[in-house]
Amino acid sequence: MKVTVWNENVHEKLDPNIMKIYPGGLHEFIAGFLRCDDIEVRTATLDMPECGLTDEVLADTDVLIWWGHIKHGDVPDEIIDRVQRYVLSGMGLIVLHSGHHSKIFRRMMGTTCNLKWRDGARERIWTIKPNHPIAAGIPETFVLEEEEMYGEPFDIAEPDEVVFMGWFNGGEVFRSGCTWVRGNGKIFYLQPGHETNKAYHNEYVQRILKNAVRWACPVNKNIPLVCPCFEALEK
Amino acid sequence: MKVTVWNENVHEKLDPNIMKIYPGGLHEFIAGFLRCDDIEVRTATLDMPECGLTDEVLADTDVLIWWGHIKHGDVPDEIIDRVQRYVLSGMGLIVLHSGHHSKIFRRMMGTTCNLKWRDGARERIWTIKPNHPIAAGIPETFVLEEEEMYGEPFDIAEPDEVVFMGWFNGGEVFRSGCTWVRGNGKIFYLQPGHETNKAYHNEYVQRILKNAVRWACPVNKNIPLVCPCFEALEK
Amino acid sequence: MKVTVWNENVHEKLDPNIMKIYPGGLHEFIAGFLRCDDIEVRTATLDMPECGLTDEVLADTDVLIWWGHIKHGDVPDEIIDRVQRYVLSGMGLIVLHSGHHSKIFRRMMGTTCNLKWRDGARERIWTIKPNHPIAAGIPETFVLEEEEMYGEPFDIAEPDEVVFMGWFNGGEVFRSGCTWVRGNGKIFYLQPGHETNKAYHNEYVQRILKNAVRWACPVNKNIPLVCPCFEALEK
Amino acid sequence: MKVTVWNENVHEKLDPNIMKIYPGGLHEFIAGFLRCDDIEVRTATLDMPECGLTDEVLADTDVLIWWGHIKHGDVPDEIIDRVQRYVLSGMGLIVLHSGHHSKIFRRMMGTTCNLKWRDGARERIWTIKPNHPIAAGIPETFVLEEEEMYGEPFDIAEPDEVVFMGWFNGGEVFRSGCTWVRGNGKIFYLQPGHETNKAYHNEYVQRILKNAVRWACPVNKNIPLVCPCFEALEK
Repeated sequence: MKVTVWNENVHEKLDPNIMKIYPGGLHEFIAGFLRCDDIEVRTATLDMPECGLTDEVLADTDVLIWWGHIKHGDVPDEIIDRVQRYVLSGMGLIVLHSGHHSKIFRRMMGTTCNLKWRDGARERIWTIKPNHPIAAGIPETFVLEEEEMYGEPFDIAEPDEVVFMGWFNGGEVFRSGCTWVRGNGKIFYLQPGHETNKAYHNEYVQRILKNAVRWACPVNKNIPLVCPCFEALEK
Repeated sequence: MKVTVWNENVHEKLDPNIMKIYPGGLHEFIAGFLRCDDIEVRTATLDMPECGLTDEVLADTDVLIWWGHIKHGDVPDEIIDRVQRYVLSGMGLIVLHSGHHSKIFRRMMGTTCNLKWRDGARERIWTIKPNHPIAAGIPETFVLEEEEMYGEPFDIAEPDEVVFMGWFNGGEVFRSGCTWVRGNGKIFYLQPGHETNKAYHNEYVQRILKNAVRWACPVNKNIPLVCPCFEALEK
Repeated sequence: MKVTVWNENVHEKLDPNIMKIYPGGLHEFIAGFLRCDDIEVRTATLDMPECGLTDEVLADTDVLIWWGHIKHGDVPDEIIDRVQRYVLSGMGLIVLHSGHHSKIFRRMMGTTCNLKWRDGARERIWTIKPNHPIAAGIPETFVLEEEEMYGEPFDIAEPDEVVFMGWFNGGEVFRSGCTWVRGNGKIFYLQPGHETNKAYHNEYVQRILKNAVRWACPVNKNIPLVCPCFEALEK
Repeated sequence: MKVTVWNENVHEKLDPNIMKIYPGGLHEFIAGFLRCDDIEVRTATLDMPECGLTDEVLADTDVLIWWGHIKHGDVPDEIIDRVQRYVLSGMGLIVLHSGHHSKIFRRMMGTTCNLKWRDGARERIWTIKPNHPIAAGIPETFVLEEEEMYGEPFDIAEPDEVVFMGWFNGGEVFRSGCTWVRGNGKIFYLQPGHETNKAYHNEYVQRILKNAVRWACPVNKNIPLVCPCFEALEK
């Protein structure tokens, strides 16, 4: 299967510490641990022509992963229209952390995707659906020593499934891993992944993302979106 | 409670037969049967300034009803942004028939809202959730002698509840009455209501809409939409 | 509306401290704060004939509230069959705390309703759906200084709505307030309420239960449960 | 993967015409078309010791398929308790046609599973979720020339997904293919399959069942069902 990891790639250029944590940028780091026998990965960033998300790229993508934060507004609406069409036509979409406020996630949800936040929390993640394919190999609970707190209420469309929930030492809770289907496409949101923390180094977070790629990979993609006048089949 | 019935009001001006079926336009006709002791109704149309959907009107609306068909594209995106904000802040939204392709419904769903269609079918509606407040007083099944067929697959976000299902004589089925919650707002979609047919004269369709208004009416509205940095409550 | 509060009423007889916290037993205490102009309350206990849940009582009950813990097995299956029939016919059901393992809750869920538990935790409850009728007047978050920890994974049927989530100081999270519809009946589960703690003295817990009674109260009840051979309506 | 097809196997002995339609009985016929390289199938029937559903058999079953009709009451409750435990521990369950009233399906739903019915209808099935794995290779619509009508309202727990809907020539509609998760187990209900009709000869019905077996096959099974006292992980 073919994965495209999209990253706005801005923090990395502004702050050398982030580049130290995620060499090559978040996109390259994520691509690195996803690559394996059955997963082929390319990356795309905001500064590429058409944000790197041309029709050619998207038509050849099974699952698109999205990381963005401070430049959500710089992605043109036409690109978002296009990505949405590909999701509805079958492409999987995985939205990470601050991508909760990305145009594409808010587009797919129909809501603000607002939440509470605070830097520098301790998070404990719980596996709520232990037999879900995205939870394969994930323990009942594991800790991220330092991660940005995201707290409820999280203004999302009702998830089909809440696979993971997050506990934070400041007293907050969060639906940290959720799934939806929109059109023919599967969507997964995962909360950990603040740019100054090390969530993507965590073996379980890596495993969750690999599982999610396999879960979101479509049986069919590039399915036409039509609204036909339809002749009666029965008399 | 306060209801605003919005109508693009275009068919009515082009075809005198439609004005005969729905004197004053669809909006006035719908407003007419909704008005009662506890429901105050105003109307708004596409040709009014800001489509009749100013901040003043929306802030004073508990439930917005939407009928549109051939001029969906003429509603400016800024108006849709505003209506969406009010829904997320608590205002109820009822979308009728060809409003399935309206910008506001597609915005709230995140999908194409495509379906199959054909004029001049016979429809039989079934009450799937007889104890739902929107089904109060509605029989197990009733017939619309002539109505536009809308057929599955209907490309919507998974409904919270399917209250009514439609059977068509040409062999099609449809989720004809569905509910969702988005943000603080309740949403109901009802399939009958083609402009050249008489669905809104049907006593049960009228009762469904009256029930839906009461169901969608918010406990609280104009709730602020915020994404705060949040101080830890526990140490 | 008419509420019946059922309690196994066993802890209260074994431990005078519990009777001090909840004078008259949990059932009388809960009945006491629910009673008001529009809510008429009676109580029923395990030691009554037919557990106090005769056909006469249930046919005259809009919402049944259930508290049980160490004597779940003493409620005869025939009584559970009967309660289930009334729920499916429209009666509301509110299950409290250790009632998660009651025969009636497991019957309605189809699952084990297992969870993690530990006495003497500090709980912080979060309102996830602020505009849900059960959350009316409930703040975004409130604390129960001492309550039994119930932790995920909670083996329940997928809830229609998760209205409240719980945070515990030992690191656990929980879906503390959930809703379902089964047949014509509405069901609400609320996690707080350990017999040696004071949850039912908390003003917000009291308000949640009052809200839940109004939410679960049926439009229609005693609806016949039938599986008819049905003549064709269309030719 | 390992499938066990369970059949009450009573009609077949009473009516030679049924044995002509389904040689060897419904169980053998279904087993026959399911068997392939990756699907190993055994059968079990009501007249076997422990209904053929011993701990040994169930522990070695990935997906259990259930057909029953006039002898639901003859399956002892202890066997149903056992089957339920295996489902909650991860075993997949596929319930067919008149199995809607089986003890195991009603157990998993918590509802009556009542519906409307009439012999000798014409059914048209619609694929509502074309990209669902159970719908792989299934056309948008196909016809069963003669099948028992099952009509809404169908008193089931809210499905996670409605994959197929049925249209009947007498005017009825039905949620003909639905999924749920209960505990660690996946459940699929499929409406066609009356004993005197030929639904299981239909290539698409066969394909749906094969797809459903693969969908319901667990990642993990025989997962312990526990409710532990749990030590605090955070201080």
